[in-house]
Amino acid sequence: MDFLTNEKLTIVGAAGMIGSNMAQTALMMRLTPNICLYDPFAPALEGVAEELYHCAFEGVNITWTTDIGDALTGASYVVSSGGAARKAGMTRENLLKGNTLIAKELGENIRTYCPDVKHVVIVFNPADITGLVTLIHAGIEPSRLSTLAALDSTRLRSELAKYFHIPADEITDCRTYGGHGEQMAVFASTTLVAGKPLSELIGTSMPVDDWHALQQRVIQGGKHIIDLRGRSSFQSPAYLSVCMIAAAMGGKKFTYPAGVFLRNDEYRDILMAMESEITADGIRYKDVHGTPEEHATLTESYKHLCTLRDEVIAMGVIPPVAEWSKLNPYLAE
Amino acid sequence: MDFLTNEKLTIVGAAGMIGSNMAQTALMMRLTPNICLYDPFAPALEGVAEELYHCAFEGVNITWTTDIGDALTGASYVVSSGGAARKAGMTRENLLKGNTLIAKELGENIRTYCPDVKHVVIVFNPADITGLVTLIHAGIEPSRLSTLAALDSTRLRSELAKYFHIPADEITDCRTYGGHGEQMAVFASTTLVAGKPLSELIGTSMPVDDWHALQQRVIQGGKHIIDLRGRSSFQSPAYLSVCMIAAAMGGKKFTYPAGVFLRNDEYRDILMAMESEITADGIRYKDVHGTPEEHATLTESYKHLCTLRDEVIAMGVIPPVAEWSKLNPYLAE
Repeated sequence: MDFLTNEKLTIVGAAGMIGSNMAQTALMMRLTPNICLYDPFAPALEGVAEELYHCAFEGVNITWTTDIGDALTGASYVVSSGGAARKAGMTRENLLKGNTLIAKELGENIRTYCPDVKHVVIVFNPADITGLVTLIHAGIEPSRLSTLAALDSTRLRSELAKYFHIPADEITDCRTYGGHGEQMAVFASTTLVAGKPLSELIGTSMPVDDWHALQQRVIQGGKHIIDLRGRSSFQSPAYLSVCMIAAAMGGKKFTYPAGVFLRNDEYRDILMAMESEITADGIRYKDVHGTPEEHATLTESYKHLCTLRDEVIAMGVIPPVAEWSKLNPYLAE
Repeated sequence: MDFLTNEKLTIVGAAGMIGSNMAQTALMMRLTPNICLYDPFAPALEGVAEELYHCAFEGVNITWTTDIGDALTGASYVVSSGGAARKAGMTRENLLKGNTLIAKELGENIRTYCPDVKHVVIVFNPADITGLVTLIHAGIEPSRLSTLAALDSTRLRSELAKYFHIPADEITDCRTYGGHGEQMAVFASTTLVAGKPLSELIGTSMPVDDWHALQQRVIQGGKHIIDLRGRSSFQSPAYLSVCMIAAAMGGKKFTYPAGVFLRNDEYRDILMAMESEITADGIRYKDVHGTPEEHATLTESYKHLCTLRDEVIAMGVIPPVAEWSKLNPYLAE
């Protein structure tokens, strides 16, 4: 039938709002007939599976299990939203310890049950760090893991469209790099608003104060949804992460930044949002072009992530950088 | 771009779980770029709109409003999940008064703001009755309104697949007609299980008690999801109702029964699930083939719906049958 692949896609955290939406999205996008839903919480997981059975998708083989071994064995693609949800008033960093331990366990399970996995997408916050922890413990090539980082860019696009009263499609090459939320680096010189660089509009047709307020709205985009809807954002992270998996399956190009492991002259031993490309060969990052000021912001963002990473090292969730290669030979210097 | 149509689709009840999933589903299925989200609850509605903006769907024009006039003006297609949600322990009939009043108001608004609407799909329970109430008050042709009724059939298909340990695709022509839930009429003689009529399997490879237990599971399918997941089913009703709208836009054929207004020698002045076809010309029903026993069950189901309809007449939500044509000339005898 009309699927992108027949290989197994495992959705980790499928009982949750993001995971269950991912499953429906992947089925509607006809990524693969073989979708396995995993979650430790059996009743809600069965409820999600029932919902999907009742959709009566044609030609699909939807399975569900609370056994992570069964879930991951044979999986070519894994997408995980399986962290704890962010509650109102909670920062992403509050989640650091709990979610990095979950990421460590996921990595170890990938190593045990599906070391040949083709691509893993990590969605749970702070995804730059949980993705890195998963990568180290999974022992897989860095190109085979990416994290959801597009939401800052799509939120910026949306806010710019609202501000300038133009269709969002007229905002092009709209990108933020580096960390998520407050730590993101906006590259206003490369973002085009109806063909004009955003950097030229700031201070002219858009007062600087308006720009700062808009940036705050982007940073608070997730919190704003919690305030409005009484629940964490789930539709957009689910949809975008499934689009990333689709690209990794060789499907439609994914046109927003993704979190990717970096080791170059500027940024080392970190995973963060970069200009990147996801194909059937995995994720690779590209050079980022911006003004010196924009680069400085990205460097700040990078440093913040290094601090977070070092906290996680101090917690013992991952070893010091020099010892990463013992767990993951692809991370040898 | 690659849309089925450019005409406006309005989602009524878009702030809810079903409505927000419908919006995402319709956008992913590329039904139309012009989607309007309506709900009386502004904050949650804005939250849903934000989620959809953050998905960064290409080439779309998503609007949202708490003004029903703005929402319906120019709408060619309307899908409404805008009733009160069924809570644990609540029967569909408990919702009768509240939801039929909501349906009356929706019908009146359709008459005022989009009398030329091409198709309306009603999802909120009891949909057979809320759909009928909407139809009467909207004053539109009966072929232009259908109600979600497929879930009983898809739940039966799913339960049969589980019972016989075969892929759900091997259960074909699996249909229930008449009312929803306890009142549904299962046509076991026309349902094929791996090519064999279900009626031949009941009492042979499937003991009668097992069949009765399975039927109960189908009837309790919605309640089961509430028990498992702690929330009402929303993914499957959203997906299936958007598939109905897609068919009404001239897209993919919808292959499950839908609720349709009936007036023939057997069933008069009622809206219920029937063998039906939804095309760009609207919905039309077909003859149902079954055993005399199956027909008798359908007649029972019909009678139950007539009782519900008469309750709603007694409440004053709709006039007596003989006066329907004053509100809707297409319902004249």
